[in-house]
Order: sequence, then C-alpha cells, then structure tokens
Amino acid sequence: MKKMINNPDNVIDELMTGYLAAYPEYIRRSSLHQRALIGTKRHEKRKVSVLIGGGSGHEPGFLGYVGKGMADGVAVGNIFASPSPIPIQAVTREINQGHGVLYIYGNYAGDLMNFEMASEMTEIEDDIQTEVVIGNDDVASSKDLDDRRGIAGELLVFKAAGAAADFGHDLSEVKRIAQLANDNTRSMGIGLSPCYLPQTGKPSFDLEDNEMEIGLGHHGEPGIEKTTIRTAKETVNVIMKNILNEGLYESGDEVAVLVNGLGATSQMELYIINKEVNEILEEKNIVTYKSYVGNFITSMEMGGFSVTLMKLDDTLKSCLAHPVDCPNFKEV
Amino acid sequence: MKKMINNPDNVIDELMTGYLAAYPEYIRRSSLHQRALIGTKRHEKRKVSVLIGGGSGHEPGFLGYVGKGMADGVAVGNIFASPSPIPIQAVTREINQGHGVLYIYGNYAGDLMNFEMASEMTEIEDDIQTEVVIGNDDVASSKDLDDRRGIAGELLVFKAAGAAADFGHDLSEVKRIAQLANDNTRSMGIGLSPCYLPQTGKPSFDLEDNEMEIGLGHHGEPGIEKTTIRTAKETVNVIMKNILNEGLYESGDEVAVLVNGLGATSQMELYIINKEVNEILEEKNIVTYKSYVGNFITSMEMGGFSVTLMKLDDTLKSCLAHPVDCPNFKEV
Repeated sequence: MKKMINNPDNVIDELMTGYLAAYPEYIRRSSLHQRALIGTKRHEKRKVSVLIGGGSGHEPGFLGYVGKGMADGVAVGNIFASPSPIPIQAVTREINQGHGVLYIYGNYAGDLMNFEMASEMTEIEDDIQTEVVIGNDDVASSKDLDDRRGIAGELLVFKAAGAAADFGHDLSEVKRIAQLANDNTRSMGIGLSPCYLPQTGKPSFDLEDNEMEIGLGHHGEPGIEKTTIRTAKETVNVIMKNILNEGLYESGDEVAVLVNGLGATSQMELYIINKEVNEILEEKNIVTYKSYVGNFITSMEMGGFSVTLMKLDDTLKSCLAHPVDCPNFKEV
Repeated sequence: MKKMINNPDNVIDELMTGYLAAYPEYIRRSSLHQRALIGTKRHEKRKVSVLIGGGSGHEPGFLGYVGKGMADGVAVGNIFASPSPIPIQAVTREINQGHGVLYIYGNYAGDLMNFEMASEMTEIEDDIQTEVVIGNDDVASSKDLDDRRGIAGELLVFKAAGAAADFGHDLSEVKRIAQLANDNTRSMGIGLSPCYLPQTGKPSFDLEDNEMEIGLGHHGEPGIEKTTIRTAKETVNVIMKNILNEGLYESGDEVAVLVNGLGATSQMELYIINKEVNEILEEKNIVTYKSYVGNFITSMEMGGFSVTLMKLDDTLKSCLAHPVDCPNFKEV
C-alpha cells in the first residue's frame, strides 16, 4: 500500500478538514455533529431538502454532491461503512426547512439500518417528515431488483432529486421524480486492480496481473466472472449486453450516459470506453442526450470503471438540464 | 500494464472520438486536420483567440480546457509528445477571428520547436499574428527559470488567458496577463507509482514499493530525490518549503491553490494534502482566495500529485472569478 496520508486512523477527519478548507463558500461543518456537512447555497424556490450519505472512500462522492441544485447535506461514514444514525439526524435537523427531507443512499445493509433508524428518530424526536429513495442500479449484483447494490448511477439520482427540489415540488413529488430516476437507471462495472484500506493495508480484492473482474462492486464485492483482461470493445460489449438485456432501453429512446472511473483508471481509457458505449447506442438507435465521463463515485485508488444508462422522459431531461453548482460538479 | 484499451496504436484517435462523442455541443474536429479540435462556444466580447496543446496522456488536459472562457482550440500530440506544426497551424487558421492567436504550452523541447515552426508558418502563409506564453512552473526541474518544465500550473495560465480574451483585450494585453499568471505561479510534485506507455508496456519510471520521488516531472522526468515514502504532512512540508523559498509569496498575499492528482492517487489523499497545504499557508499568513483540488493535468495512471500556488492581484482575481464552461471544468 502506497498512500499519501498521515495517521490511517485520521483519514476521514483529515479528508473532511481538507475539503472544508478548499470550499468554505460551498459547505460548512454541522454545529451538531463532526461527521455532518451542510451546504451553504440553496435555490430560493427549494422547499424540500435532500440528504445524501454513505461510506467514505468514494470521493468526490458523497460530500462533493452537496451544493446548489444537488444535496443540502451529507452524513459521512468511515471508509466503505455507513454513517451512524446520529450524524444523519444532525444533517436532517440542520437542513429541514419545514417541508421534509428526502434521503438518498445505496442499497447496502449498513446504510439501510442506519438511515432507517435516523428516519425514525427524526420523525419521533424532531417531528420532521422523511422519505427515502434507495439506489440499486448495479445489474451485476443480483437478478432481483431489491437485492441490487447502488453504484455510480446514484449520481444521476442525486441530480434529479436536487433539480426536483429546486423546482419547488413537495416531498412526495421530489421522491416520485428521484424514484423515477433510479428506476430508469442501470449500471455495470468491472474491476482491474484493488484499492487498499488505510487501516489494514489490505487490498479490497485479489486479481492476477492479467485478470479483470466483471460486475465487481464498489467495495470489492464479487462480480459475475473473473476473466483474462479483454479489449475495451469486448469489455464494453459485455457490460452493454447486460444493461440492454434489462429491456428498459429501446430504439428511439433518449438516455444519459455515465462512464465512471473507480480511481486509478486513466481519463484516456474512460474516453475510449465512452467511444465503445456510443457505438453500441448508435447501432441500437438509442439517442445520447447527455454524457458524463470522469471519476464521480470512486473506490479510492481502485482500477476499473462502470457504465450507466438512464432512460429519459421530459421530466428527467428538465432535471438534467437544471444548473448545479457543487465544488466538483457544475452545470451551467 | 493493465489498460482498458483496444489497439495501442489507436489510443489517441479513439480517445478523441470518445471525447467528441461525449461533448458535441462543446467541441468539434477541425475540418483541416484530424488532430485539431475547435471549441463551439465563444464569448461575444472575445477578440483574441487562445490555442493550447501538447502531448496526450494528460487528460482532461489539454482537450478538456477548450470551452467558453478558456481555449478556443487544441492541437493534440501523441502520448507525451508534442503535436506537429500542421495541426497547430490548422487550429490557428480555424480559431483566428482577425485579432491574432495566443499560444500557451509547456516548456519542453518538442513543444518549443513545433509551436515556433507553426507560428512562423501561420505568420508567413496565413498572415495571422501569434504570441506565445510558455508554462514553466515546476520549481523542482531547474534553478534557472528558463529551463523549468511546465506542469499543472498551466491550468491557471489557461484560465487567466481565457478570461483576459473574454474581457475583449487585444493580443498584447492577453499575452501580458497570461505571462503575469505564469510568472506568479510555482508548482512542485512527487511521484508514487509510474504510468505505462500503451505501445511499449514500459513504466514511465522505476520506484521501489516503499519509495517516492520528490520533484518528478509529468512524463517521469527525474526529480530532486528518491526517498522512502513519508507522511502527507512531511511531504507537503518539503514541497511547500521549495515553493515558498522562491520568495514570491509573502505574508498578506492572496493566492490560488491547486492540488493536482496525476491519475491514480485517490481524491481522499488529495484533500488530505490540501489540508496540509492550507495549514502551512495559514501559518505564513498567506490567504487562499480560491482552491482547485482534483485530477486536472494527469499523466495517465501515474500515482502522485503536485501543489501549485499562484499569487493574485486584482487582475488575476478577476480572471479566476470569470465564468468558464468546459466539459470538465466549469465555474459558475
């Protein structure tokens, strides 16, 4: 393990300190909890607040998506571990403007337990209404939708929810649009090389020098198959076949495309991957409305990437076109 | 070498195809040359055009910095190799609006030769006036300013030049401001792990598992010292000591801070590094006006980072505050 850190026990606190130091005009620490961050910019029409969160190690997810047009606050967990209910409750209390709070997080056992507990606590103790949308875009993780993990597609759900909130909708409508965004979104990824957990120095998974893992999760969860490494074209063909087999995307549909790097995979590779995605979509007569290519939700320095498609209707297109202003995610 | 590519001979063409497919509303291929890209959005007040370029492998540099408020076009070289004069001339011809073109590139022998030749060709053949600003921010590369390499600090020079052009200044004034930006900018980096050249599969440099190289260049050029890996605090102390020893940054000054990842170093680490930079600046009573943290000018999947400071006056502050709209670099 080769990491530019100080004490491995302090990486989360130091990461947060460095993040807050970089963007004081965008974000502040909650006065109620150390692991709770609150955005400082809010659209004047926004009533409902949006809370995101999850484990650390996915930077710029999730703290990077607090900002105008996206989330109002974030609860920050340890590396690849859910935040506890206490910071979630703290964020909820600080961001609620009397119109309720939508929670968005990935479909992981720890997050489910902690966010549900926080939701109960805030409803009872603080009389704040909360709703939930759970990201489950990873088609490789299960045939059963309810068992699927949330991976990079969550970014597009945050974007849709943030726009819906900025449009001034009430909690049930913001939830409806965010749920539609999630339901229209499918992703699949591959792993090329592990990341290392700072406190143990252990790799997140094992692969031979000539191997890749198809369908690997964001925390190194096992995928569908370990194979020898293939070309970008062959690999993207496998991914797209699995995504398109869902039956959600048809000729004439408009989609958003997200090619997400997990950390150590070069931008050059991500654009070559995007070329392959684009060729398959053109062949299927599926129209790309908007593309996102970059490291949006990472797994520290893991090598690999995922491809996400989100099927768009007029509502979701208006959400994607809505401006956002986060430190590392802006749309003019 | 583990890369998600197709034929190693085609990486540049495929990268460009994937880039153009992602952002058709921002950028198009020149009709004059395959390796020349032209921005499609231009500020209505802009007279002078800005041309950037250099080797590939630094994505999202340099093609990612073509957009409104930044460069008007880019000439794209092979991996870590300068573009030839022909695409540079092609971009110059396409972007010139009758008010001349400013070239900005890094201080490398190949770039110097090719951009100078292109400049002569366009002045003679096309009667287009060109001026040049050469990035040389890397304090580790030489004691002599004229021999210093350009590294991540070039991003801030592009930003300043683009804003100056948008303000409607003439060529000599845009050059003056870009030169001021460069003269006020100092950087230094370290390398942790090499990148691999697609066509040879060879690493860009060699390091032991417990080593880092202080002052390493963006193409694996040797630095000042190989040492055993140190903490983020110790490493940033060495970097900042070298930058501050230049005597350019004094108590009370305002600066822009750029923490640039080279590719494989996690965002978590970059923010921990930013924390250390910030602590040193606060101790020296140097005020951070604006921070940029991320992978802006990479070396494919190289591990490591650089720190850049740019000293600001009112002109440069107005340049940094000016909006930009590039696919992966936006300021609202």
